[in-house]
Amino acid sequence: MPSFSRPDWSGRFNRLERACADLPVDALVCSSPVSIRYLSGFAGSAGLLVLVPNRPPILLVDGRYAASVADDIAADRIAPVTIELVERRYEGGLATLLDRLHLTTVGFEAAHVTVAALEAWKKVTPATQWRATEQLVERLRIIKDDAEQQILRRAGRLLAGVARALPELVSTGLTERGIASAIDDAIERAGFSAPAFTTIVASGPHSAHPHARPTDRELRAGDLVVLDFGGVLDGYCVDLTRMAVVGQPTADAFALYAAVRDAHRAAVDTVRPGIPASAIDAAARDVLTSRGFGDAFVHATGHGLGLEVHEDPRIGRADGGDSERIERGMVFTIEPGAYVSQRGGVRLEDDVLVTTDGCEVLTDAPRDLLVV
Amino acid sequence: MPSFSRPDWSGRFNRLERACADLPVDALVCSSPVSIRYLSGFAGSAGLLVLVPNRPPILLVDGRYAASVADDIAADRIAPVTIELVERRYEGGLATLLDRLHLTTVGFEAAHVTVAALEAWKKVTPATQWRATEQLVERLRIIKDDAEQQILRRAGRLLAGVARALPELVSTGLTERGIASAIDDAIERAGFSAPAFTTIVASGPHSAHPHARPTDRELRAGDLVVLDFGGVLDGYCVDLTRMAVVGQPTADAFALYAAVRDAHRAAVDTVRPGIPASAIDAAARDVLTSRGFGDAFVHATGHGLGLEVHEDPRIGRADGGDSERIERGMVFTIEPGAYVSQRGGVRLEDDVLVTTDGCEVLTDAPRDLLVV
Repeated sequence: MPSFSRPDWSGRFNRLERACADLPVDALVCSSPVSIRYLSGFAGSAGLLVLVPNRPPILLVDGRYAASVADDIAADRIAPVTIELVERRYEGGLATLLDRLHLTTVGFEAAHVTVAALEAWKKVTPATQWRATEQLVERLRIIKDDAEQQILRRAGRLLAGVARALPELVSTGLTERGIASAIDDAIERAGFSAPAFTTIVASGPHSAHPHARPTDRELRAGDLVVLDFGGVLDGYCVDLTRMAVVGQPTADAFALYAAVRDAHRAAVDTVRPGIPASAIDAAARDVLTSRGFGDAFVHATGHGLGLEVHEDPRIGRADGGDSERIERGMVFTIEPGAYVSQRGGVRLEDDVLVTTDGCEVLTDAPRDLLVV
Repeated sequence: MPSFSRPDWSGRFNRLERACADLPVDALVCSSPVSIRYLSGFAGSAGLLVLVPNRPPILLVDGRYAASVADDIAADRIAPVTIELVERRYEGGLATLLDRLHLTTVGFEAAHVTVAALEAWKKVTPATQWRATEQLVERLRIIKDDAEQQILRRAGRLLAGVARALPELVSTGLTERGIASAIDDAIERAGFSAPAFTTIVASGPHSAHPHARPTDRELRAGDLVVLDFGGVLDGYCVDLTRMAVVGQPTADAFALYAAVRDAHRAAVDTVRPGIPASAIDAAARDVLTSRGFGDAFVHATGHGLGLEVHEDPRIGRADGGDSERIERGMVFTIEPGAYVSQRGGVRLEDDVLVTTDGCEVLTDAPRDLLVV
């Protein structure tokens, strides 16, 4: 077993400090729980992380968390932050801190702070100039560092193990909900702390809905069945989709499956540093279009994975503007699909880590149409 | 079995329309997934609901949801909304709609719309006057209507059933994580669609952390064990905490338990319409203070339950301002606790529905200290 490396907290903090250097701010207040977790390891549901150059990050928490945060720092489970206890309301604690440290120009995460929250902060910090920032922490998170790659590799292997067990979990006589429950149990047994999202088991006509939720529908002969599930390991999400069919597939169903399988392969084969994300999407979309399923592919080819199950980069059409450039260390899904109303849908999904000259498939498990 | 009533969509919509009548707005854009679900039944992860007086609500969704929304409307599973398909970006679809319907003064949910999102909306709607609104839908949600009370009653009974099974799920030789997993399985078997939050099993010193997460720690003699778990049924959350002890409790541990038990009872006995929420908190806090645990009660006595596991009303100290007045039809937790660093903590939690002259405990199951 390799030993797992401790997150490089100071590396993350230094990169953020460099990203902030061009901004005219004395400090950055992170309020997004994901940003806070990425920068400090603190994973509570409330808290503010205040970053001031040349100081340890300051974590504002309320009484519910104070004891556990101190324990976590002592045990080296989270970054060595300075704890600032909030007595009542977070905005009050924040105002006191900014005042004490003479911080007057302060950045905030505009994509996370609501209009109402900013108003509340402004009310108690009349001397503060608040500056909207965007994508500062998200831009760091898009490239996974060594500790993150280790976790995601391990998570991918565990999820592939669950995929390999699908023949034992999916059978006729079961409902979508029953199969989803069996998959969730397998995810937990594999060592994940939780499913990464509500497991999708979508059979027959339901498979034509990309975001279907499991129902009490029993599998029936001829059904295509979308099995889309994921797990959270040490806070990081992985995500995988495989397909089953009840009995031998019709020629139409198999053609749909084969088109998606080939689109998936074409997209994976395209991944390498330096190309725009849209080139990966185009590789999948071209295959589906050539088989007559271009309009049936109603979503993007993939999305980033990390502390969130949907994060940057978006692997989709260029959409008018520039498409993200693929870089080494990115981790994202490749999940083309094709959905034909009333008849059924197919999706195949894996997670890839971009390497120097291509990608590593983190969730390597058979992609065959599983006949049940 | 009673038959379950369909949500009164038009009632909810009409109450919202009345709440908006005083505002100078032509329309209200709901972007909070919870508001959208409450008003329409739509439970997707993306979408905007636009409410215009004397029109059916308009649901903007993207291609991933269009087919399932149409099915859900046809099957009467969601409100009869008008579907507006968004081609690319939601702000673009929103701009097109506002322009087509000549809506110029438009309310938005300030507690949900981020500073960045509002900027993006403003950019594509230069002629629109955007007005911040707060708590419009939340104020409606605070009083549960008949359909919601039915679901919450049923959910409370199911969760009480899980609590009654705790003697079979908790035993020495198990880890916190193993017990949490057994509880999660019981929650699923009971018929819930998911746990309402990450189940807390906090033993020994961990029990002193109100928000502890399960670890691989095995139960040890003398441990107090906090068991805090919940379930989601038809979108609605219920939440319950019971206590176990490994072997016979010490006198100190029992005194801590008994203080919390009595605080819990005092708070439940206080609930009735017309009083301020802070009176319920004070009832619990007074008991704990009189036993010497006033400072050990580091959180509020309770929180509302509904589509969110934490929603209004907050059952806490008056906190300077006015405290929420308790009304018939509110549903909230009563969960006093006391936490002594290193030694351990105790919490007991039930969910109550406010009736005409008191409350109905929805999660009625024994509150005894379970000796394992």
